[in-house]
Amino acid sequence: MATTDKPDCEPIKSEEALAAPPRCSNYSSVHVALRVLLFAASVTAVVVMVTAKQTEIVRLPVFPLGAPVEAKFSDSPAFIYFISALSVAGLYGILSTLASIAVVLKPAYATRFLLHFALLDVLMLGIVASATGTAGGVAYIGLKGNSHVRWGKMCNVYDKFCQHVGSSVAVALFASVLLVLLSMLSVFSIYRKIPK
Amino acid sequence: MATTDKPDCEPIKSEEALAAPPRCSNYSSVHVALRVLLFAASVTAVVVMVTAKQTEIVRLPVFPLGAPVEAKFSDSPAFIYFISALSVAGLYGILSTLASIAVVLKPAYATRFLLHFALLDVLMLGIVASATGTAGGVAYIGLKGNSHVRWGKMCNVYDKFCQHVGSSVAVALFASVLLVLLSMLSVFSIYRKIPK
Repeated sequence: MATTDKPDCEPIKSEEALAAPPRCSNYSSVHVALRVLLFAASVTAVVVMVTAKQTEIVRLPVFPLGAPVEAKFSDSPAFIYFISALSVAGLYGILSTLASIAVVLKPAYATRFLLHFALLDVLMLGIVASATGTAGGVAYIGLKGNSHVRWGKMCNVYDKFCQHVGSSVAVALFASVLLVLLSMLSVFSIYRKIPK
Repeated sequence: MATTDKPDCEPIKSEEALAAPPRCSNYSSVHVALRVLLFAASVTAVVVMVTAKQTEIVRLPVFPLGAPVEAKFSDSPAFIYFISALSVAGLYGILSTLASIAVVLKPAYATRFLLHFALLDVLMLGIVASATGTAGGVAYIGLKGNSHVRWGKMCNVYDKFCQHVGSSVAVALFASVLLVLLSMLSVFSIYRKIPK
């Protein structure tokens, strides 16, 4: 295995670049940076969604004068699924960051690690993208409503709650894009190890 | 490029297996089969969703005795996004099937094709998974409703419409799983081309 792995950083041989640092060739640092970002984005999305709570005085058929009604993420199964998926993504983000750092320090098993990362990244992308879609779809109904089935919008009353949900979905979308980039980078890193 | 590609099928050299057919090593036939399935699943999901139409007599505030109200996919932006995404997936399915067959017939560019497939599969997975999540989230509200925000369920009235939507989302979920498998297979096929 180790014999086929390219070295982590190759020295630049041209004279003009003698003063420059060695050129890293297998994108290890980009991998680590993207994985740290994935962890940060996932945790941010979860925290912003969990803190989405707002109580407003709403007129109900039972209380025509109004009663305090709280909106919270656990009212919708879509948001519970969203938090579960992004929590798993956050855990995966921190574990894969540590594994990436281990690969940078000891590149002997880099190719096999890249394979496992590429396979797991694809799986995580499926989970995070579907969770983002689910929460986004429900949040859109909350924002705009649907007159055809008489589902009223709620963001005109629970404005702060909707701001939290919208921000959380946007950050999760960013996490999905990061996972697409990570998957592609892992694939490309493996492809580069094939001798031309 | 071509010199590094392994041949499509390797003959088995052991004596006991002389009568057996040659062992295919780069999963080309599995690739083609999965891509045909992806095309079929995407087209099925789109057709089943587009044909989801049902008219029922519903009591409205304006018409207390009831008026015919039609439920159709275009009532929800989530279902429009779903159809767009699955249409793109179907188009990708047929194009990538043809490309896979071309690679089987002429394996000289197999590695480069595998790289492009792996990158595009990841992108398509993100699109199809998010569309499945979006439509699934909205369909779940239609099935169960949400008492916290007074969104009534509609599947007790529009039963056939909901059956169509549910089936379409299930087939799209199958398409997402196919894309996960295809991405993993492409990654693994590239990995196998690295000399051990």
